[in-house]
Amino acid sequence: MSRETVSHDKDGVIYEFAPEMDAVRTVESGTQLTVETRDSLDGVIQENDDLLEQIPDEVNAATGPIAVEGAEPGDVLKVEIEEVRVAEDRGRVVTTPGFGLLQDDEDVEAPFTQITPVDGEQIRYGDLAVDIEPCIGTIGVAPADETYSTLVPHDHGGNLDTNDMTTGTTAYFPVSQAGGMLAMGDSKAAMADGEMCGTGAEIATDIDITVELISAPAFALDRPLVDTGEQWKTIASAETMEEASKLAHRDALRLLEAKHGFSRTEAHTFGSLVGGLEISQVVDPLVTVRNALPSEYVSSPF
Amino acid sequence: MSRETVSHDKDGVIYEFAPEMDAVRTVESGTQLTVETRDSLDGVIQENDDLLEQIPDEVNAATGPIAVEGAEPGDVLKVEIEEVRVAEDRGRVVTTPGFGLLQDDEDVEAPFTQITPVDGEQIRYGDLAVDIEPCIGTIGVAPADETYSTLVPHDHGGNLDTNDMTTGTTAYFPVSQAGGMLAMGDSKAAMADGEMCGTGAEIATDIDITVELISAPAFALDRPLVDTGEQWKTIASAETMEEASKLAHRDALRLLEAKHGFSRTEAHTFGSLVGGLEISQVVDPLVTVRNALPSEYVSSPF
Repeated sequence: MSRETVSHDKDGVIYEFAPEMDAVRTVESGTQLTVETRDSLDGVIQENDDLLEQIPDEVNAATGPIAVEGAEPGDVLKVEIEEVRVAEDRGRVVTTPGFGLLQDDEDVEAPFTQITPVDGEQIRYGDLAVDIEPCIGTIGVAPADETYSTLVPHDHGGNLDTNDMTTGTTAYFPVSQAGGMLAMGDSKAAMADGEMCGTGAEIATDIDITVELISAPAFALDRPLVDTGEQWKTIASAETMEEASKLAHRDALRLLEAKHGFSRTEAHTFGSLVGGLEISQVVDPLVTVRNALPSEYVSSPF
Repeated sequence: MSRETVSHDKDGVIYEFAPEMDAVRTVESGTQLTVETRDSLDGVIQENDDLLEQIPDEVNAATGPIAVEGAEPGDVLKVEIEEVRVAEDRGRVVTTPGFGLLQDDEDVEAPFTQITPVDGEQIRYGDLAVDIEPCIGTIGVAPADETYSTLVPHDHGGNLDTNDMTTGTTAYFPVSQAGGMLAMGDSKAAMADGEMCGTGAEIATDIDITVELISAPAFALDRPLVDTGEQWKTIASAETMEEASKLAHRDALRLLEAKHGFSRTEAHTFGSLVGGLEISQVVDPLVTVRNALPSEYVSSPF
């Protein structure tokens, strides 16, 4: 099967994940796609002198949405991320007034821009080189009821800013609307867990994926899940990291219970011995936490 | 130099890190020690039928304190952790009423105990095997002003429940009192990042360390720091994960500034591209977060 391309400029983008959206493309389960994404700031930051005075009303353009034929609420959308490639010659890491972890630090300048030129397999930050480890910052499907800006992560996915959304992993999303309505963008050439200043090295990418529909799954998925090959990671977003940790941990316990027939108490105590909580991002209007379970203790619950 | 032993039963333990403490041993900088620790629950949980009805007044016995000759406030105590060995035939993971991440989950039984027998290089949880990756849960020095129970982590260290306090890493603590007054205990045979149920597999250990005094360091250390060989990790404890994240990130920025001559803004944006925030534990009265910087971008600041 040849790989179809869905492009931010030829097909379209969204700045909101809404319950009702018009698909830019409808594909069959099993379709291989290349999704072309532009950088989260729509290309307006190209030099160190280009400053972001405020978070734009429209940010994190997500290419799509892509409908998958036959997807119905209660299904699961499986997205194999085969490769994420940077698609321009520079990234950019920025601060913006009123955004990020250290807003109360007088020594942190905002706005501030550092362009990070691509140099082979690395980007450069001044004299320093950083390996390109691209990730998809915003990826998700149509939510059940609410509309979420692409700046916000929630149970539908969205602005998860999770480093595991990268080459070689498989993401799972709960389908809440007919077609699922997958969209993605806001990629980074590199990003620290936490995304403390509010961005990674924001960059355009071409993303090879295969989308697959899991109809009537044996396991009801409430929130995004990612299989890195080494770990199964539940992903939860909430107002506080404590609340996100609880959600991510509870979702992980359900995986352990499904696999081992554990009681909740057994899953909770076993789950306190292996893997553990990880931070995706602490800066978006909601924060995102993962719970990583080693693959030797979990298998696909669907 | 022969290795001296400091033992929980022959020498003594503390249940509080206090500004004024009497040393059980005084050693020269460079001394090699084996520190024998008992399990965090003082051996009272030996079978699945032994239940912890409440957190004891005295918990997390820390062997010591050990004074280092010449250590003065403003110095840094360097603790090379050469090996952590389990020293009994079983660990135990428990829930206790009113403690842990899922206290509001009606399906989580508390109290509950699962004994995890040692089986070669692994412990067993029922039919499942978990690799022994021992860590020191409570490790620290005399605080500046306040007294902290060994249940609590803070700038002096204490109940950090940080998996990186393990074989092959080097921990650094800020000296606030003459002699430094190092103590440690509360080891686990295995623990998930987060320690969600409130414990790992609590177990007695023998810990080989070399203690070294860094007098009048070039870099003022405010909180614990650990060098894993691959990463330098700042460690911060606070009321919320958001606050702990800020402290750990700010400490990491100081390391980047010291190494590269970065401005705060440059360190903040560069530090948003590499490594990142990690969770140590979310259950102790204060929570603990790390910021991990890859060693290629940081060297010893002292």
